[in-house]
Amino acid sequence: MLQSNERFRITYRLTCEPAEDPYAKARDLALEQTVEVPAEVLPPAIAELVVGRVEVVEPVEEGGAAEGGASTWRAVIAYEAEVTVGDDVTQFVNLLFGNASLKAGILVEDADIPATLLMRCGGPRFGIPGVRGLCGVEDARPLLCAAAKPLGLSPADLANICYAFAAGGVDIVKDDHGLADQAPAPFAERVPRCQEAVARANADTGGRTLYFPHVSAGANLDAQLELARAAGCRGIVVSPLLVGWETTRRLAEESGLVIFAHPALAGAFFHPTHGIRPDVLLGRLFRTVGCDGVIYPNVGGRFTFSLEDCEAINRRLREPYGVLRPAFPVAAGGIAADRVPEWLDRYGPDTVFLLGSSLYRQRDLRGAAARLVEAVRRRTTVER
Amino acid sequence: MLQSNERFRITYRLTCEPAEDPYAKARDLALEQTVEVPAEVLPPAIAELVVGRVEVVEPVEEGGAAEGGASTWRAVIAYEAEVTVGDDVTQFVNLLFGNASLKAGILVEDADIPATLLMRCGGPRFGIPGVRGLCGVEDARPLLCAAAKPLGLSPADLANICYAFAAGGVDIVKDDHGLADQAPAPFAERVPRCQEAVARANADTGGRTLYFPHVSAGANLDAQLELARAAGCRGIVVSPLLVGWETTRRLAEESGLVIFAHPALAGAFFHPTHGIRPDVLLGRLFRTVGCDGVIYPNVGGRFTFSLEDCEAINRRLREPYGVLRPAFPVAAGGIAADRVPEWLDRYGPDTVFLLGSSLYRQRDLRGAAARLVEAVRRRTTVER
Repeated sequence: MLQSNERFRITYRLTCEPAEDPYAKARDLALEQTVEVPAEVLPPAIAELVVGRVEVVEPVEEGGAAEGGASTWRAVIAYEAEVTVGDDVTQFVNLLFGNASLKAGILVEDADIPATLLMRCGGPRFGIPGVRGLCGVEDARPLLCAAAKPLGLSPADLANICYAFAAGGVDIVKDDHGLADQAPAPFAERVPRCQEAVARANADTGGRTLYFPHVSAGANLDAQLELARAAGCRGIVVSPLLVGWETTRRLAEESGLVIFAHPALAGAFFHPTHGIRPDVLLGRLFRTVGCDGVIYPNVGGRFTFSLEDCEAINRRLREPYGVLRPAFPVAAGGIAADRVPEWLDRYGPDTVFLLGSSLYRQRDLRGAAARLVEAVRRRTTVER
Repeated sequence: MLQSNERFRITYRLTCEPAEDPYAKARDLALEQTVEVPAEVLPPAIAELVVGRVEVVEPVEEGGAAEGGASTWRAVIAYEAEVTVGDDVTQFVNLLFGNASLKAGILVEDADIPATLLMRCGGPRFGIPGVRGLCGVEDARPLLCAAAKPLGLSPADLANICYAFAAGGVDIVKDDHGLADQAPAPFAERVPRCQEAVARANADTGGRTLYFPHVSAGANLDAQLELARAAGCRGIVVSPLLVGWETTRRLAEESGLVIFAHPALAGAFFHPTHGIRPDVLLGRLFRTVGCDGVIYPNVGGRFTFSLEDCEAINRRLREPYGVLRPAFPVAAGGIAADRVPEWLDRYGPDTVFLLGSSLYRQRDLRGAAARLVEAVRRRTTVER
């Protein structure tokens, strides 16, 4: 016997061709994401409880008709949680955009997480306060992170880079996410050496820098995790869209490590009229499955995000949401070191700034890191 | 010491804004997907061996300039296999489109799989001949598959549907991919009952129908696999983009079961100027990681594929490629039962036709399946 327990809502922006009826499109979506059969062959109980309930279909005011005579509509569909999703994050993502991805003009603008699933996922295990605690950084200061790279260096060379950044005083040194388990620097050699180098820098300077290796989730994921823990690492970098939602959730639950998420592949979802809004995917969903920090490509760097996208992600990661701890936005992707104080003013201190190229261009990595740290400290303690 | 062993090639279609230089865009891509730092900070050995080597940049002839003054270019980049990828399929996908996804106007048109990775993945364990063998269907006939649904039914109701389709004579009955482990039909109850119903139908009719449950890859993936095997299932349905590339590869390697892949989420990659071509993603890559059959939305159904897309996927799944066995294209997504003979003429017999709604609309599922089977048999034996 089917019973209704809880409905959760997904908000879509529908872009309709002139011949498309937005109400029909919303109803079709509600069928497609649940039962995948036409309404006329459904038993009434299933039509009532399993098919998403279309609650709202309304025109999007701003700008009126879109290009080519298309029109845009906001649709809200309420799905019954236990019957359609249960506590399976994989199935939630499937319901969110699985078959819908294969249609056109469907953009997920907002998504509630059903309570059971939220409980099951649990969100960040450290969150902003936990990561601050590990780094020993008070609330008024943002965290600074540097990326160890490039792919192709030996473990010794990467360890030297880690030492330099740590000695320069950044809070976290992370592996580039392209560092997996390749021949030049196999995971099992790279990670202990980099962690040792950071620990040595901490001993030399009295710092508390952390090192987060990238866990590439090949066949040896659990072995890599064990190695990272045994080496003394307190966090890892994971690419949720490469390793899978359930794997990411499990890592957050079981690893005991801080999870920083990399947005590899995420851009596939960011088309303006079809996909999942960046703040929903990287903010709401990555946080839900347990990411303590979420790396995203900051506006003005090498990628295509707008300031609005970035601020929306920041908001989603930090806002109160159920029992979830807030997660750190990690702004990256071509941030210039000398502009970090400005970004700090705009984004506020509950942000991690992740730098790569603009430090490498300065050649003296320790000096570059130290100047960055000093500039941020000055901005934080004097001017703010 | 870095040594070159094997380079593999990725072909991109670049869409360039009027101000964009296609050569610079190709070089940038070669850096972005490997070292993620500007060329000027790279040691020469890394610039030579790790950064992708741009081999071709040429205008795409057809149609000249694209809309809005943009131009389209074909770029071929050769990457060194061992240094950039190794045998990690996750890292291969990352190199293919990880950071590139976050840029604009980059379409993966073709992708070689490095030999080491191909060996590691191994492709379909059954492939077309293996699946034919399990079903006892000779080469001249396509396979027919029906989907058990909708979500919301009880295990008993779903089992009745499975019985009807099997008794009607389809070769494979598969779960709808929205069937996970939800309350109305938990996996552990649903799967043994559906398998039992299919076995019973086989006993009643002398048929050899198989039942493939959808493995939802929640936390209990391995338990679900064990249940499916214990129930006597010979195959499963998996959504590689939901469960992850490495998980799919591992299932093919370790499960001993036929793997049918569902394309959930794949549409995110199918924008015309940015993403991964359907035949590369669903054809080349899904086959490489071990899918024996790949479900795709056939042209003219509920989704947006063109005939060209469909035929390209068919070709990629069947063509000789390294040591890989050919995999079955599984045409689906709104195929009308009465048009299957036409599709058979077009796609040829090494195809699985997967039907859902058009059988359900006929109400008498056993009769609908039997008519479909008979029509295909007639077309196969008499007219061909």
